[in-house]
Amino acid sequence: ISINQIEETNRLFISPVMLSVVVEHIFLLVLVTLISVLQNAFFATKVEREGKEHHANTSAFERVSCANRNCMDSYPTFLAVLWCAGLCLNQAPAAFSGLIYLVARQKYFVGYMGQTSQSTPGYVFGKRVLSFLFLMCIVGIFNLLLVRYFGNDFKDTVETITTAASALLLIP
Amino acid sequence: ISINQIEETNRLFISPVMLSVVVEHIFLLVLVTLISVLQNAFFATKVEREGKEHHANTSAFERVSCANRNCMDSYPTFLAVLWCAGLCLNQAPAAFSGLIYLVARQKYFVGYMGQTSQSTPGYVFGKRVLSFLFLMCIVGIFNLLLVRYFGNDFKDTVETITTAASALLLIP
Amino acid sequence: ISINQIEETNRLFISPVMLSVVVEHIFLLVLVTLISVLQNAFFATKVEREGKEHHANTSAFERVSCANRNCMDSYPTFLAVLWCAGLCLNQAPAAFSGLIYLVARQKYFVGYMGQTSQSTPGYVFGKRVLSFLFLMCIVGIFNLLLVRYFGNDFKDTVETITTAASALLLIP
Repeated sequence: ISINQIEETNRLFISPVMLSVVVEHIFLLVLVTLISVLQNAFFATKVEREGKEHHANTSAFERVSCANRNCMDSYPTFLAVLWCAGLCLNQAPAAFSGLIYLVARQKYFVGYMGQTSQSTPGYVFGKRVLSFLFLMCIVGIFNLLLVRYFGNDFKDTVETITTAASALLLIP
Repeated sequence: ISINQIEETNRLFISPVMLSVVVEHIFLLVLVTLISVLQNAFFATKVEREGKEHHANTSAFERVSCANRNCMDSYPTFLAVLWCAGLCLNQAPAAFSGLIYLVARQKYFVGYMGQTSQSTPGYVFGKRVLSFLFLMCIVGIFNLLLVRYFGNDFKDTVETITTAASALLLIP
Repeated sequence: ISINQIEETNRLFISPVMLSVVVEHIFLLVLVTLISVLQNAFFATKVEREGKEHHANTSAFERVSCANRNCMDSYPTFLAVLWCAGLCLNQAPAAFSGLIYLVARQKYFVGYMGQTSQSTPGYVFGKRVLSFLFLMCIVGIFNLLLVRYFGNDFKDTVETITTAASALLLIP
């Protein structure tokens, strides 16, 4: 059997194996993304209904529209850090943190709608979860550089630590 | 030939083969993304021109700005479901649905601009296409779990069905 | 050694090798994404502080809020072309162009805040960088089609040219 034959078999067998491996390594991220899409749909429906019922001029419509806009403004940032953290390190803690972010977002949206117009919550929310996902990315890339230039693979250790640390996000 | 040698050849040959396989499995998605980027640029140019000509206070500017903002609000959601559906199941029906969404978005934008200020279209559009892409993701993940725990691969059947179903989106 | 055994070893060795290969091919893109996330956080903090200090009604708050919103509107588009260009062709020039876009965005944001209310910069910024990334995607896909149907691989040549061309973006 020659190198060429191995390359041939590689070409033949890599494609399906590879794709299933890829999907297995991202399916939790996909699930969290789908839940976030459902939440976006819920927010959009609220805005749509409020706008139709109250002719888009009331304070209630303004509040729900503003809450939705603030959530949408930070949505691409959330997706970016979620997927980077999941790809660079490990999908499980990333997906778990993503879920916590979605809960925080739901609370923010509901809180914003229920507020009287005097005091509204700030523009930023979910800072802690986003910082944690951000740190996961940094650690993942740092680990990759270590592996490449020093040959030490701390990935297993780091993954265990991040999985444990992600549970700390539950503390309010 | 030993296991080690195979691993070595794997390391050598995997990289280029893998990347071309990856690009082949996403290039339709990339194409649809590029078309959507062109459309975004078209929207942004409209807003820019309207703002410069009419000093940002007229009702025409407000309408085009609002239409653009509504389109941009749902853009990350669209990209997320498009790519998840394409990766989890099959890129061809996902890209086709994506194209239909872009047509719906164009209609929405043009319709919004042409409206008199009394009646504007709602906040949400393209619900049917986004739901279809959402369903594709669910089916893709469900299929993966089936394969893993029962060993049945319905992927080919499912792909055929979704490809056929995506044609149904054309019915207005 | 039989084909089956090779497939088995493939399944065993592909997963870790593949993931490290994937991460190696995207880590510059991840880095640029992380820097852009930091910048988003900086923008959001500015908006948050201005809103708290000045009770959300002053012209300064309106300006910073509008600048932030314009930046956020084009953020998903930027991420999409950055990652498509990086995946389809080469991550190094894509990440370099991404950095230049982030510098242009910072300048735009600071310029928007410092403006008097008479003249504000337009809605669109960073057109040149986004067009360059867009072109990179087109070239990458075109190259893939060439490879598939004609067997000529211009990827190396094209990568050298784009890397050189990305330096031209520095010219103001």
